Amino acid sequence: MITEIRVQFKDVDLSQRIHYTALFSYFEVADHGFFRKIGYPYKQLFEQGFHFPRVHVECDYLGTIEYDDVLHLKTSIEKIGNSSFAYLFEVTQKDSGAQVARGKMVNVCIDSDSGKPVPLPEFLKESMKEHLAASK
Amino acid sequence: MITEIRVQFKDVDLSQRIHYTALFSYFEVADHGFFRKIGYPYKQLFEQGFHFPRVHVECDYLGTIEYDDVLHLKTSIEKIGNSSFAYLFEVTQKDSGAQVARGKMVNVCIDSDSGKPVPLPEFLKESMKEHLAASK
Amino acid sequence: MITEIRVQFKDVDLSQRIHYTALFSYFEVADHGFFRKIGYPYKQLFEQGFHFPRVHVECDYLGTIEYDDVLHLKTSIEKIGNSSFAYLFEVTQKDSGAQVARGKMVNVCIDSDSGKPVPLPEFLKESMKEHLAASK
Amino acid sequence: MITEIRVQFKDVDLSQRIHYTALFSYFEVADHGFFRKIGYPYKQLFEQGFHFPRVHVECDYLGTIEYDDVLHLKTSIEKIGNSSFAYLFEVTQKDSGAQVARGKMVNVCIDSDSGKPVPLPEFLKESMKEHLAASK
Repeated sequence: MITEIRVQFKDVDLSQRIHYTALFSYFEVADHGFFRKIGYPYKQLFEQGFHFPRVHVECDYLGTIEYDDVLHLKTSIEKIGNSSFAYLFEVTQKDSGAQVARGKMVNVCIDSDSGKPVPLPEFLKESMKEHLAASK
Repeated sequence: MITEIRVQFKDVDLSQRIHYTALFSYFEVADHGFFRKIGYPYKQLFEQGFHFPRVHVECDYLGTIEYDDVLHLKTSIEKIGNSSFAYLFEVTQKDSGAQVARGKMVNVCIDSDSGKPVPLPEFLKESMKEHLAASK
Repeated sequence: MITEIRVQFKDVDLSQRIHYTALFSYFEVADHGFFRKIGYPYKQLFEQGFHFPRVHVECDYLGTIEYDDVLHLKTSIEKIGNSSFAYLFEVTQKDSGAQVARGKMVNVCIDSDSGKPVPLPEFLKESMKEHLAASK
Repeated sequence: MITEIRVQFKDVDLSQRIHYTALFSYFEVADHGFFRKIGYPYKQLFEQGFHFPRVHVECDYLGTIEYDDVLHLKTSIEKIGNSSFAYLFEVTQKDSGAQVARGKMVNVCIDSDSGKPVPLPEFLKESMKEHLAASK
């Protein structure tokens, strides 16, 4: 899945490049867009009592990103565990195709009442399998 | 009440000046610090079933604010209504004393279950009166 | 001009409603989109030596805005001055059409070297006139 | 070095826990505080023509962090390279001492004109050595 994001003015700092925290919020746009695309918007899942806090997030910054650049975030599922799953985000400049960042994020499925991890619902696992990185 | 805030790197944009949204988050630091100072931290009030959404916020930008500047936010209560109250924020550069911004914020007290406005608790009104702008 | 924005997860706070600062960053998306639409992207103007810091920003919060809501920001020009101009933003829920916020923003045109206000270029004034609030 | 940070209202999302991006901005507060403490504030270094973009950032989320929690960020230098250096951030709850997050960040020293990596100035290397993780 590709998410297109234009770099906002507020996301660029005095070095004239994107502030490193901005990419993490772009990853969230891709994460939430992914769930919407596979037919299980987070909003529904929240109402069903699931939350998906991150347990690990990382990013490698590989190239320059500036104000008004249009980025493509290619989102794939790297791993599906029992109660967690991992994303891989590959970020390229739309115009040049150059890769400028690569991120990972591990989300765990918890019961929102108890706050404890619970197994990922089977319907989610099934939908995610179709988006495994190997098949991207 | 004076709140001292150092301008963070992420709050400055490519124009080398503070991004205008950053001041609004500084107002929140002052707002929450004010409630802590008068002895009623918001956390307690949330647990008692009150929330305080903003119904009006504004800011006039009067001077240049840059990375690493140390700001003083002078917070006073401009008005106490039945279910709402208004802040006045005067922002100066610590070093020069020059005023660089002035903000206002109106918070309304609501019942967090119903989402409807309720009268401000008397204990809050009493504490706020001591911080009215006139007596600053 | 209408800008459509979906409320992001990170923009909602523990009260389950949008955080008040998020609307200000949505105004910026509309502001920058407006300049792109009238054919003068800010990026070009920055390169020509102009910057457009805000001198006044305000927002009235009129209704509840929650995670995943789709908002329509109707952007019009309220006033064109010598070296500044004012926006009016009317924010509605896409689904219900209910107005949930109304904002204003005054941007001043400065020379990025001197930091001093300069007259708005005529080409900008001309383009803006077509988007005056009266003709919206 | 310990940096004390109180979790702000805007940093908590509808799950009632800190939003994962907020920790990354806290790392920046620690990063910039560290340089100020060792006597080389970033502002000076910027003026001398150095910038320090991040090339890798990561965080493991180990425990629950909520609104108004007071966190301690223990910052140490994990590695000093030729043109880059790596931080280790250990985040604990001030009250309980429980570790709630652990982060890493690699900053590279670049010449702000060319945008190319340059060797870390010797005076920085010397000061950093005193803060190596081993000696924390």
